[in-house]
Amino acid sequence: MISKKMEALVENSSVIRAMFEEGKKMADLYGAENVFDYSLGNPSIEPPDEVKKAIIDIVTEENPMDIHGYMNNSGYEEVRREIAVSLNKRFDTAFGVEHILMTVGAAGGLNVILKTLLNPGDEVIVFAPFFGEYRNYVNNYDGNLIVVPPDTKSFLPNLREFANRISERTKAVIVNTPNNPTGVVYSENTIKALAEIMYKAQDKFGTSIYLISDEPYRELAYDGVEVPFLTKYYENTIVGYSYSKSLSLPGERIGYLVMPGELDDWEEIVHAANVANRILGFVNAPSLLQKVIGKCVDVPINISQYDRNRKFLYDALSRCGYEMVKPEGAFYLFIKAFEKDDVAFSEKAKKHRLLLVPGSAFGCPGYVRLAYCVDYDMIKRSIPSFQALAKEYYR
Amino acid sequence: MISKKMEALVENSSVIRAMFEEGKKMADLYGAENVFDYSLGNPSIEPPDEVKKAIIDIVTEENPMDIHGYMNNSGYEEVRREIAVSLNKRFDTAFGVEHILMTVGAAGGLNVILKTLLNPGDEVIVFAPFFGEYRNYVNNYDGNLIVVPPDTKSFLPNLREFANRISERTKAVIVNTPNNPTGVVYSENTIKALAEIMYKAQDKFGTSIYLISDEPYRELAYDGVEVPFLTKYYENTIVGYSYSKSLSLPGERIGYLVMPGELDDWEEIVHAANVANRILGFVNAPSLLQKVIGKCVDVPINISQYDRNRKFLYDALSRCGYEMVKPEGAFYLFIKAFEKDDVAFSEKAKKHRLLLVPGSAFGCPGYVRLAYCVDYDMIKRSIPSFQALAKEYYR
Repeated sequence: MISKKMEALVENSSVIRAMFEEGKKMADLYGAENVFDYSLGNPSIEPPDEVKKAIIDIVTEENPMDIHGYMNNSGYEEVRREIAVSLNKRFDTAFGVEHILMTVGAAGGLNVILKTLLNPGDEVIVFAPFFGEYRNYVNNYDGNLIVVPPDTKSFLPNLREFANRISERTKAVIVNTPNNPTGVVYSENTIKALAEIMYKAQDKFGTSIYLISDEPYRELAYDGVEVPFLTKYYENTIVGYSYSKSLSLPGERIGYLVMPGELDDWEEIVHAANVANRILGFVNAPSLLQKVIGKCVDVPINISQYDRNRKFLYDALSRCGYEMVKPEGAFYLFIKAFEKDDVAFSEKAKKHRLLLVPGSAFGCPGYVRLAYCVDYDMIKRSIPSFQALAKEYYR
Repeated sequence: MISKKMEALVENSSVIRAMFEEGKKMADLYGAENVFDYSLGNPSIEPPDEVKKAIIDIVTEENPMDIHGYMNNSGYEEVRREIAVSLNKRFDTAFGVEHILMTVGAAGGLNVILKTLLNPGDEVIVFAPFFGEYRNYVNNYDGNLIVVPPDTKSFLPNLREFANRISERTKAVIVNTPNNPTGVVYSENTIKALAEIMYKAQDKFGTSIYLISDEPYRELAYDGVEVPFLTKYYENTIVGYSYSKSLSLPGERIGYLVMPGELDDWEEIVHAANVANRILGFVNAPSLLQKVIGKCVDVPINISQYDRNRKFLYDALSRCGYEMVKPEGAFYLFIKAFEKDDVAFSEKAKKHRLLLVPGSAFGCPGYVRLAYCVDYDMIKRSIPSFQALAKEYYR
């Protein structure tokens, strides 16, 4: 009785669901400490103390009607102002309240902007490997996802193939840097080259092509690497942000969209996004958490635990013979499977009690993703399993 | 550059938006105390103290990784269990964790279930007057909204017309009792008659027709009137609930869906709804607020302020010559305009500094809606304006 669209989605969702269920069974069978679950991008660092303090301060000091009541669908003005001021300070931008829309996480923000922009059949370009939900979000509005095949050497966007695929049907391009699943950060040069292709295409086709920058991992960059802020390089850029990873609040569903004044048809887009937020059923981002963000915009993020995991795991896996690009951001490693069939490979990994997500879930078969937002000791305990898995292929 | 669908939506949304902006301007011009804003269904009763206590207890006592982390897309099991137990106690039902899905408010819940059920072209029946957002929610999934014309005598569902419109294309029927905008509560007899029509149609067409009961106002019923719990009367019933009105938490976006085991294809629907919650970008209901609800499911609701407003306003407006059905629930009065054109009438009302929403926004021209979830003193101060407005028509 469910819709045809949902039938297909339910079927596709069953792989990760099965992995989750299997992980629980394995934990029962072998003991939780002997199962090495690298499948979920769930932050392992506690939210900063400032979050707790902000919650208590707000409910103690502010009027409950204001804390929990309706506000403009775009969110509390004072919160949006804090975010704009913070962005301006960090990135030398000139955003105001009117450029910020509070959203139900980055997932909510992406749905709002895709609903705002897409007519049925409009194309949205992504670069493999990509976060699999992009396909679902684009399909929600009957857009067509166009996948640019990966450059498996660098895992930077394959710009030559991008230039071939951008067309008069292209309405938007989604980028995600630092990247899930590779951990790669796009350099300034890469962004400039990408922007150039997009500007040329806009000129050639006489269209507006929007660059949607999905940035939940912005704050997770290592070795002092700079993550360029994309609105500076391409005028039609919309930024989607989430506090899920930076403040470890994934359950709270809180983020924002930045819609700079330079956007073609900015006023129309801002108004429509506000309406889309309402009619998609989000209505507004959760009110108390908005206020918490207002007090925590500039809280320093400590990612040293992730960095330690990253270095240890990269070194240990390299020694075991695994191939991967050293990640500069996010909390993922994207390693090459020892056989072409990444699903078969991740099945073999399970026998060693390793839960790894097949790269085909990210449009990049032949690889698997490890989420290293886990306990350091689990990583250490898991190395013999990685060694044993490698030995199955190279004895 | 925005999508065609959004263009139409933006245009339609401008009436209420304009009213909101005009209200602010009027407040500047005449002083806030001289503007009588009956336009918004924003609760005027403070959230119960238990909410504040629950928030502080949770952030003080529980593990922040658990409070703010990911959980199953359907929500925390212990919260869903609390809700099921509470419903079972109140309505003699037998729900378990597996029947409850936590949602981003009732709006989120309705979108989840409509995404789950609707194929393009499927029909969803509503009874005028109805909450205008239903049209948008149904359109989100390319369904067709079929509006049953109002019975303006009782404002109960027009069942004769309903029986004419239900067809092999009908996938769902949405009811809303206590009702926005009329305040009418459907009696048990009405529900039984409605269920009978639906059972007959299912038999006749060999289809499953789902009854979606949108119940944000369940707890707001006066004079001891009973609000029937619909799963008892019709097996294919899905209930959508929100804490926005009962606990005065509209900004927090927290509610749930009940999907009883009696539903045709229950397992498929529950699984698909869980996936829909994720891919629509809700992911899950806000985590801290879920936990707050877990501690507040049985907090008694005090609606005496609304009741006082209701009685006073009903009596005063009746004395001024206004016609309306005395509401038994929610916090709305639906009064007959003194002219056919409800938009013109509400424009005249504005001259008396009364902000009333035209009934055409609810598919019922010739009427206007008053939300009496406002300050009692504002109501008292507003009566001369209602008198003056009536005099314009009957001098």
